Amino acid sequence: MRGIERYLERERLRIDAALAAVFPVVAAPPHRLVEAMRYSLLRGGKRIRPALVLAASDAVGGTRARAMPYACAVEMIHAYSLVHDDLPAMDDDTLRRGQPTTHVAFDEATAILAGDALLTEAFHLMAQSAERDPQPRRAARVMRELAEAVGGRGMVGGQAADLAAQGQTPDLAMVEFIHVRKTGALILAAVRAGGLIGGAREAALRRLTRYGERLGLAFQVADDILDAEAPTSVTGKAQGRDAALHKATYPAVLGLPSAKQRARELLEQALAALDRFDKRADPLRGIARLAVGRAGEP
Amino acid sequence: MRGIERYLERERLRIDAALAAVFPVVAAPPHRLVEAMRYSLLRGGKRIRPALVLAASDAVGGTRARAMPYACAVEMIHAYSLVHDDLPAMDDDTLRRGQPTTHVAFDEATAILAGDALLTEAFHLMAQSAERDPQPRRAARVMRELAEAVGGRGMVGGQAADLAAQGQTPDLAMVEFIHVRKTGALILAAVRAGGLIGGAREAALRRLTRYGERLGLAFQVADDILDAEAPTSVTGKAQGRDAALHKATYPAVLGLPSAKQRARELLEQALAALDRFDKRADPLRGIARLAVGRAGEP
Repeated sequence: MRGIERYLERERLRIDAALAAVFPVVAAPPHRLVEAMRYSLLRGGKRIRPALVLAASDAVGGTRARAMPYACAVEMIHAYSLVHDDLPAMDDDTLRRGQPTTHVAFDEATAILAGDALLTEAFHLMAQSAERDPQPRRAARVMRELAEAVGGRGMVGGQAADLAAQGQTPDLAMVEFIHVRKTGALILAAVRAGGLIGGAREAALRRLTRYGERLGLAFQVADDILDAEAPTSVTGKAQGRDAALHKATYPAVLGLPSAKQRARELLEQALAALDRFDKRADPLRGIARLAVGRAGEP
Repeated sequence: MRGIERYLERERLRIDAALAAVFPVVAAPPHRLVEAMRYSLLRGGKRIRPALVLAASDAVGGTRARAMPYACAVEMIHAYSLVHDDLPAMDDDTLRRGQPTTHVAFDEATAILAGDALLTEAFHLMAQSAERDPQPRRAARVMRELAEAVGGRGMVGGQAADLAAQGQTPDLAMVEFIHVRKTGALILAAVRAGGLIGGAREAALRRLTRYGERLGLAFQVADDILDAEAPTSVTGKAQGRDAALHKATYPAVLGLPSAKQRARELLEQALAALDRFDKRADPLRGIARLAVGRAGEP
């Protein structure tokens, strides 16, 4: 486990430097908005999603210079989704990564606008890259796929379904419907974006797609298990909050032992999808193992 | 004036048909989200911004097939901005175009998500067009410019500055700062998008840019004047609401007669920018005259 943690720490620093360069401190108005965007984006986070873009690009022999703008865009989209999901009208969370959520640290209007701007700037960054790309059509495809993954049929649709499910008795089909969209879609899109921009052929892209699908689900199962088991000091969130909200989670519909079994199976399937890749795919393998981690232990 | 009104009515029907085709009624989840998106996008509106995309493309000899996706994207971005601006944490408006705003007709969480999804789908539509465009690099440029116009340095920044200005004593510099971003940026971007995608050369693009800048300001001056003068039955908004909120408006800093004078000057400048265009630019001229309309009368 040590190797992948060192890898992720190194990549996190690179990603943070690239993100900070996109959003320099500004003294000009609207500085409060820019501060809120920086606060939402730069105050921490494991940067797993952008690391997946870079690792998938590396696995197929792509260059970092080409992949980094998409890595940044993916993290900006992730950050926007957290800011909006935390709002009082949505999950009403006051704590994120152990610190006040954006609407608490600033105000609700600023949080809504900071999320809107982060989403918009993500597409700005990708469009700028596409304009300069020797293969602008391929770059447009990456952008189109990412937009599909995070729009009404993807991530935003998943959050809407999650809110609609509250108070209802969740079943496995509903939980998977929500999680495939709410969490899985962006993780899959991150892996595919890295593969596409790295120049993956169709066969390699299909394998990366299988990996990304399994990883996306594994991620959420593990997160649900962690939330059910771990204290606030570990998650940075109030313990058992999902259960208290009667949220649609895997432990809630499968029970904790079966949820853990499911996490292990998904990890196996994610790793199997990478069988034909060489050691350049090791970071992808390491991220999958780390994502499930203790959540897979009986 | 009759001619331009017939033109806009005909274009409105075409634009509405294209928008409805992007968002068909769905029975599958998350159907409440899709309903809210359709409600926000399809329940009316003059479609001035998408008409500007089409008219600017026509003025430089572009094709409708190429311009329509950008026209739709511009209207989707406009619709998202209205949904979010109307939220309780922002302008807290309950009425829009004479009907309940999205968060009133649905709920706050759904309105936030519907706005997010409309913005995302706008970029999806443009990325899809870029992927199919014989000149994908040019299409990427249009997308990059639009993103710039509506992000933190553009439309969203203008809304943030507008909220920050409430309660302060507005001056002309502040009012222009806000309006150039909040309203002007998207109008200018709509005109430039039509010009670019229609194949405008640099000289024509510069003239369209001048037209778009003047029109964007004229639009807002006229809107401020209308809000100060007209009853709810005309605007679909509560009368004098801007004044009641101490909003930064042109009549507030210039007085009503000078604001009207300013509207007339901006119209003159917008029309002058089109001097070298032939009659294919008549709809652009007509839209400018209509935008100022009675607001320019002493």
